[in-house]
Amino acid sequence: MGFKERINDLRLWMESGGVDMVVLSDGEAARNPSIRYYCGHPQDAQLFIGANGKTLLTPWDEHLAARCAQADEIIPYTNFRLDPVEACVQAAHYFGLKAGGVIEIPAQTTHLKYLLYVEKLFGFSVRCGGADAFIKKRRAIKDAGEIAILKDAAVITDRIINAVEKGVIDGSIKTEADAALFIEAESRAAGCEGASFDTLAAGGGRSFGIHAFPPYTAGPFADKGLSILDFGVRFKGYATDVTMTFARGPLSKGPADQIALVKEAFSLVIALLNKEIPIPDRFLLEEGVLSSRGAALFAEEFFKKHERFMPHGLGHGIGLEVHEEPFLSARAEKESPLAPGMTFTVEPGLYSNEDGGCRYENDVLFTQNGAEILTHSKIVYL
Amino acid sequence: MGFKERINDLRLWMESGGVDMVVLSDGEAARNPSIRYYCGHPQDAQLFIGANGKTLLTPWDEHLAARCAQADEIIPYTNFRLDPVEACVQAAHYFGLKAGGVIEIPAQTTHLKYLLYVEKLFGFSVRCGGADAFIKKRRAIKDAGEIAILKDAAVITDRIINAVEKGVIDGSIKTEADAALFIEAESRAAGCEGASFDTLAAGGGRSFGIHAFPPYTAGPFADKGLSILDFGVRFKGYATDVTMTFARGPLSKGPADQIALVKEAFSLVIALLNKEIPIPDRFLLEEGVLSSRGAALFAEEFFKKHERFMPHGLGHGIGLEVHEEPFLSARAEKESPLAPGMTFTVEPGLYSNEDGGCRYENDVLFTQNGAEILTHSKIVYL
Repeated sequence: MGFKERINDLRLWMESGGVDMVVLSDGEAARNPSIRYYCGHPQDAQLFIGANGKTLLTPWDEHLAARCAQADEIIPYTNFRLDPVEACVQAAHYFGLKAGGVIEIPAQTTHLKYLLYVEKLFGFSVRCGGADAFIKKRRAIKDAGEIAILKDAAVITDRIINAVEKGVIDGSIKTEADAALFIEAESRAAGCEGASFDTLAAGGGRSFGIHAFPPYTAGPFADKGLSILDFGVRFKGYATDVTMTFARGPLSKGPADQIALVKEAFSLVIALLNKEIPIPDRFLLEEGVLSSRGAALFAEEFFKKHERFMPHGLGHGIGLEVHEEPFLSARAEKESPLAPGMTFTVEPGLYSNEDGGCRYENDVLFTQNGAEILTHSKIVYL
Repeated sequence: MGFKERINDLRLWMESGGVDMVVLSDGEAARNPSIRYYCGHPQDAQLFIGANGKTLLTPWDEHLAARCAQADEIIPYTNFRLDPVEACVQAAHYFGLKAGGVIEIPAQTTHLKYLLYVEKLFGFSVRCGGADAFIKKRRAIKDAGEIAILKDAAVITDRIINAVEKGVIDGSIKTEADAALFIEAESRAAGCEGASFDTLAAGGGRSFGIHAFPPYTAGPFADKGLSILDFGVRFKGYATDVTMTFARGPLSKGPADQIALVKEAFSLVIALLNKEIPIPDRFLLEEGVLSSRGAALFAEEFFKKHERFMPHGLGHGIGLEVHEEPFLSARAEKESPLAPGMTFTVEPGLYSNEDGGCRYENDVLFTQNGAEILTHSKIVYL
């Protein structure tokens, strides 16, 4: 789907809900790649979409916009003193909104900023959250073009998985920084925009944490016990996310058991997604469809049966964001079905202060037939 | 100042304003190192401060908290289903708040989440923004311990500036990725948590942008015309931020003029901060003190006199955040005085689609005597 089709789809939603203008915003304080989804501009801008389907982009960097953005009109953000509310007021005039016109401001708007929008948009009807919810649902289902990009990104990710394994075995990767910087370099050499997030490389002394802090250090990696390497690449805007675990033997029972449980959980979840094992009714939505929450509860119950606790969700959608819908989490408020076209991670993990941590994570494409596994992470025994 | 003194200072502010509990939050969607400022825990947590000065931390990663955090009570965030509103309700009970008790929720709370806070905290008085404004003002003035850390960070930054210059000259740094990954490795080897933000390395073909996208690629660096390298390190939580420009000659008049203007602007701003040149009244606040906005307007007027336009602010505070108060920006809404103890960048820059960009940025400590320049960036002629 091209930008025009996406905008038209959004326009139809606006029409059905009587919305006259949708505002999307991306900035340092709150990132939102929906702007990229609708016009190609990667960051630091506001995108205004009118009821007629026309788009107005106000980028911080007009030179970047001239090269990346497909919008009907581009006006530098500095014209509005970098003030999102002022830009919005001007955009309402640009689109000729009449009194009472309905404006959907960004969902990530803070309460304090919301009060300013309401004040400065006096006479208009200010709404918040509806467009964002619609767009997130749309973005959760990838189209053919997006799936092709994600598959290319997965191939690059797999090459890096194999190269990191080789580097650790041949001794060229000795430290956390060696591993992380290797990934940064390889991803760019492969034409990626970079790593999709700060690589988490936690050597044997630090793998107890879910997200190691700092993400990586000059300290040793794959040195003893369990080491975790959580990384991804961003290719044409789209993110992968995988986790490898390196196990330096001989392993005592604690870490060995952790690995076995995590691997079993991963296999069982894939079997569940593939309907190779019966899905208990309590994980199904009314339509008989597995919910994203149900998949997570399934994994939680598995670990509970073994008297262990996973302190994070089972997985999350990947796309223009590295964390997006669907959220495979037992703590998710709303139940949402897993639908064909969704791409998400499956990443069971267990952590202990004594035994360190083990996580095994791959990206899958959900289809009518189940889970197509896109990446091929490894648990590497040393 | 230790955590206890900081908490006590906040407690006094709460007392004077009748606030019974302050809530600070840090998460992927909105970072806030004020939690680190008050208890040492680096990320992904909520910190609740009661009217009695006691603290309750609800970290995502309890193992990390056990090693980093100094709080009176630590309860894993998973106990509250990772729900900030639920954690807040429980914290209100923990601190024994009575009906009508005043709770300051995080300033970065979205409007949609604000509505949930108000609903779930029915019976309490929910406020937003006051504590954050107070804390930001406090954090803008660094204490002796913070200044010592920032000076150490500046020494490391200077070493990297010199090493990058050497690497470009001797040919070991040829690409944008070479430069960026060198900085990532060197910063960690020097005991830093890493680079303080994604290094922006823009070779001759990409320096037209304020913030290059992607931040760095496998493409050539310092190859022709003007190349920009914007980076910093994070040391014990505190960030530096500098920009080097590499000029590959022979330069035509356009880029040569840009460099000359940027360098002159930098020198003039330092002279202004040092009161070595008279400060026009229009840049002063009523008390006769230079305002952060005045400094930026001074630079804008200089560029305007030369028929050029700087599309970003003159500088910004640095500390636990790489962008914090004071903001030296002509677009800033409020005027705020530059006060002793503030640490901020001075970073004039000019950009052109034809000539590329030039930015020169250093970190300064503002004192009674003016600007103490902490870092020593370079414009490198090749």
